[in-house]
Amino acid sequence: MTTESDARDELIDLAADFYDQFADGRIPEMTLPTRTKSNIEYDEESGVWTYGDRTSTRSANSVRGARKLLKAAYTIEFLADQLDDDRSSTLRELYYLSESWDNDEAQFKSQDESNDLVEDLEIVTGVTREDFHMRPEESGAKVMGPLEIREQTNRGDREIHCQLDVGQGGYQIPNNPDTIEFLDNDAEFVLCVETGGMRDRLVENGFDEAHDALVVHLGGQPARATRRLTKRFRDELDLPVVVFTDGDPWSYRIYGSVAYGSIKSAHLSKYLATPEARFIGIQPEDIVEYDLPSDPLSDSDINALESELEDPRFQTDYWEEQIELQLDIGKKSEQQSLASRGLDFVTDTYLPERLGEMGVL
Amino acid sequence: MTTESDARDELIDLAADFYDQFADGRIPEMTLPTRTKSNIEYDEESGVWTYGDRTSTRSANSVRGARKLLKAAYTIEFLADQLDDDRSSTLRELYYLSESWDNDEAQFKSQDESNDLVEDLEIVTGVTREDFHMRPEESGAKVMGPLEIREQTNRGDREIHCQLDVGQGGYQIPNNPDTIEFLDNDAEFVLCVETGGMRDRLVENGFDEAHDALVVHLGGQPARATRRLTKRFRDELDLPVVVFTDGDPWSYRIYGSVAYGSIKSAHLSKYLATPEARFIGIQPEDIVEYDLPSDPLSDSDINALESELEDPRFQTDYWEEQIELQLDIGKKSEQQSLASRGLDFVTDTYLPERLGEMGVL
Repeated sequence: MTTESDARDELIDLAADFYDQFADGRIPEMTLPTRTKSNIEYDEESGVWTYGDRTSTRSANSVRGARKLLKAAYTIEFLADQLDDDRSSTLRELYYLSESWDNDEAQFKSQDESNDLVEDLEIVTGVTREDFHMRPEESGAKVMGPLEIREQTNRGDREIHCQLDVGQGGYQIPNNPDTIEFLDNDAEFVLCVETGGMRDRLVENGFDEAHDALVVHLGGQPARATRRLTKRFRDELDLPVVVFTDGDPWSYRIYGSVAYGSIKSAHLSKYLATPEARFIGIQPEDIVEYDLPSDPLSDSDINALESELEDPRFQTDYWEEQIELQLDIGKKSEQQSLASRGLDFVTDTYLPERLGEMGVL
Repeated sequence: MTTESDARDELIDLAADFYDQFADGRIPEMTLPTRTKSNIEYDEESGVWTYGDRTSTRSANSVRGARKLLKAAYTIEFLADQLDDDRSSTLRELYYLSESWDNDEAQFKSQDESNDLVEDLEIVTGVTREDFHMRPEESGAKVMGPLEIREQTNRGDREIHCQLDVGQGGYQIPNNPDTIEFLDNDAEFVLCVETGGMRDRLVENGFDEAHDALVVHLGGQPARATRRLTKRFRDELDLPVVVFTDGDPWSYRIYGSVAYGSIKSAHLSKYLATPEARFIGIQPEDIVEYDLPSDPLSDSDINALESELEDPRFQTDYWEEQIELQLDIGKKSEQQSLASRGLDFVTDTYLPERLGEMGVL
């Protein structure tokens, strides 16, 4: 975590670099790690994706390069002002806002261009876009469990207990979860859940109360805010994290993005990834053991499983065994298929058994 | 609103009908409005979509028909038990759960089949699926504004002020908003907002505080829970409702589903639609007046606008003028394009001006 004034300083330093290069009679440039798949490495030690050693240089020695640095300078000024004023904005607003800039050459031609520039600034400064007060479009997910938090909102602090002070829908994770301070915590572990239907099942059955679990709704591929908060639960509250998804290759990737980060946000793995997170299910062996209702694997499922066998994140004995088994049985099952054993099977039997096997309960 | 015991009675009555028909030596049957587009009518008086007079009969005089009634009987038993036990479940859980039923012929072959049956039961009994305690998969949206509510959760009542007791993310609407009771209300109007980015902008700028607005995040095509709560704000709190979306034909349909209901849920229009809801923008004339950044209309945009001209919901002088203008200028603009005038333009200028014109402020 950087403070707002640190974030501002990092930005101003970058602009000052351009200035100094000009003043020294050099052509200004900015150096970045090369952001292609071939320059992304799985770091064995930290267990997350990071950039390799190759770098690219954005130099003002061409019109195109000069225009990029001009846009960077305007964006830095906007972000620095935004931090001064304690305001925030979305990536899309930044794109539209550039139309009001006095220099036409600095205006963005597409949102991809402004999104990429903000990612560049994250990488060069080592500050996350949340610390620049750039909000995502994606909506945060929600938490239910025995934890009291204090959230710093722009209209004052709010103290909220994530069971006693919220409705059935739970506590809505804000776009920047670093505004949250953990107060009282009685949780024993964190259970990240892929689907809303299963999240609601666990809450209705009182699973969070019975087992002192923090139930985090991922809502498909999890937003940055959700991944960040999950990491903070692990690191600051020292809680085990387990991830509960459908039993198909796309859901294993959801687990992978919680645990190891994604290629797109490799520069943020240390901030977003929870390498200690473990996969609870639906495992291919569960499909066999519990005779779950299933669908046949499609061709694209099979391709995805085969590419996971090549993915360093899944090169463990456990995953190789599970993926080979799944290719062998040719089936996939959803979380909610556990309902074929009754609505309480997941909370009375399946999860307690799995958590016991994993040593969490 | 029906009570839980009313909902249970309606279901049991339906099963009792089958029984009586058997006992009288008649072949059991169930009569439903025909659910095709040609049997859906725009009701001028109530201003919403409803079914026409044509009906279809599900009779046990064929194996296929008999199987349908068998499935209906099993589902009725499940729902009646669920209401007895004060439990709930998702549509997907119902589909999987049918695998545990003792009669193979009663089991659903696909989720479409179980979804359709639940809709049939809604139509025949006049009870909504929320009152059967069937939860949607879709996640509820969120509210921010000067309103205190009491939500009846399955772990006790919660009193929540939708500004003072929530974080920046707001109050999460539960799957069944009829569990909400309105306590203290200082709101002057309801502002439904399509995108998360714009919702966050209004909250950050304190628009809900400055104008005593209930800001409801629609999140694209709104969930049933969101539409139901909006209707309750209108009917029970007597608040004007305005809808703020992007300026394109797909967003006008979002407005249409809030105001007039959708074809898919025509049987629920009286429960979900808010015919008094008015469209605030982005209007095609705003694109011209404020010279907003825009994209050209695509062929599918143009087709959608032309089919809206034929749609009875949009056959007013206002909409004809706006849609003709949009076809003429060939442009569409997003809500967030207002940021090209600065981040405060929407809250300081655009919305106050429009609300003034509409007589809401």
